[in-house]
Amino acid sequence: MELIIYEMLYIIGLGLGDERDITLKGLDAVKKCEKVYIEAYTSLLSFGLSTDGLSTLEKLYGKPIILADREMVEEKVDNILLEARGSDVAFLVVGDPFGATTHTDLVVRAKTMMVDVKVVHNASVMNAIGICGLQLYRYGETVSIPFFTETWRPDSFYEKIERNRNLGLHTLCLLDIRVKEPTLESLCRGRKQYEPPRFMTINTAIDQLLEVEQKHGKSAYDEDTNCVGFARLGSEDQMIVAGTMRQLCTVILGNLTLPCHSRQDSSGGRRKC
Amino acid sequence: MELIIYEMLYIIGLGLGDERDITLKGLDAVKKCEKVYIEAYTSLLSFGLSTDGLSTLEKLYGKPIILADREMVEEKVDNILLEARGSDVAFLVVGDPFGATTHTDLVVRAKTMMVDVKVVHNASVMNAIGICGLQLYRYGETVSIPFFTETWRPDSFYEKIERNRNLGLHTLCLLDIRVKEPTLESLCRGRKQYEPPRFMTINTAIDQLLEVEQKHGKSAYDEDTNCVGFARLGSEDQMIVAGTMRQLCTVILGNLTLPCHSRQDSSGGRRKC
Repeated sequence: MELIIYEMLYIIGLGLGDERDITLKGLDAVKKCEKVYIEAYTSLLSFGLSTDGLSTLEKLYGKPIILADREMVEEKVDNILLEARGSDVAFLVVGDPFGATTHTDLVVRAKTMMVDVKVVHNASVMNAIGICGLQLYRYGETVSIPFFTETWRPDSFYEKIERNRNLGLHTLCLLDIRVKEPTLESLCRGRKQYEPPRFMTINTAIDQLLEVEQKHGKSAYDEDTNCVGFARLGSEDQMIVAGTMRQLCTVILGNLTLPCHSRQDSSGGRRKC
Repeated sequence: MELIIYEMLYIIGLGLGDERDITLKGLDAVKKCEKVYIEAYTSLLSFGLSTDGLSTLEKLYGKPIILADREMVEEKVDNILLEARGSDVAFLVVGDPFGATTHTDLVVRAKTMMVDVKVVHNASVMNAIGICGLQLYRYGETVSIPFFTETWRPDSFYEKIERNRNLGLHTLCLLDIRVKEPTLESLCRGRKQYEPPRFMTINTAIDQLLEVEQKHGKSAYDEDTNCVGFARLGSEDQMIVAGTMRQLCTVILGNLTLPCHSRQDSSGGRRKC
């Protein structure tokens, strides 16, 4: 009879700032793991996922890190789980593993393959936004603002924001990031080619929000609605700015052209913080 | 002219589990601080705020920790801030500093007194509940379930749960804890005497929820409504149980009599996770 030693898959939140936002518990786990993957699909580290950024982490952890891009997470996750059946494996995630983007699929799949999972929590955008002073328990449903294209301008967020505001609740608006998206051309030809990474600025988000307001005309919000804009939340150089939609466009725009911003969220609420 | 050196107040989230859930950044800050306070008013550490629990922390930090109870946080916070004008001071908070209970007042007060503040984020109940599989962005407004007394049975949470459920959203129900509450007698006599600490069990919460449903009769939920119960979320011995309200009462009750539970939350949703 074959003896299978079931080891552990550690899913570890890295928090929001830099390499020192990992918890002691998370670092303990990484140090005992034979293989360490870092998830680079749903968000980018503000300290960069360039070779430089990774080597900072590798130096801290004392071992190499494998970049798990969208393709690997979606298509080859079973390989990672198979490895976790024979040795301890760490899967690092920016923020909390179950924050804005959950890794529930990974956990369910692990259970199916009888791989034990341990989660090390950390801060995520979903709770760190509390820093602006608006109470977390006064938020309604969270919405995502996707990049509009010429032919695809989905606006289901509008109704949700309207509803939240009618109830006196804030809305967390998560702004789109596009990382390692296959180009339309490559999809047609079946060859892998990727668009350059893009992060939605608060400026773009507000433009889109106002366009949708104009289309629906239900006065869910307007240029004078107070919002709070977040950029690089949790990093040393984070920016949190409160003002009307009109003001936010002017104030933040310039700074968001910095090369390393990773998260931009606009938390609209009735009250200014 | 008097020279005032403005030092820093660090507000540091400890996360949800034990002493090793602090981040490296948080520990760096604690180590450079001259004074270290720990906030013991809004929640208790699952690793205990007994002398034993504190000494575990003190050993890790290499310095003494001052317990900031409700009285100190509410009445003597200016003294802490004055100290932070002349030296680095750490204020430790279970979870994230701006999680379920925010420390916004402290930050505003610090700004007024021209004390610089740095926040070190960590996991809080508000994002760690994502571990049960229900998506965080599908939650509506959060509610609190307070301990009912003979004369005080507030039920404003009912309408909010009803609304969330009508919208197909989950509801995070935060269950009451009572720590260092002055007794009624002591309030009358002006002498400080405190009630023993109490934590609401999921059982009690469900009893109260069903009582309120019976009173209002609007079928917001019933005994067959699926819920997820959390106890000691983020700790080594955390419990997460899904089932109907009726089932949750039976399953979890026994375990919640353990001495060190610190957090119990019941996350009601339309779907079972």
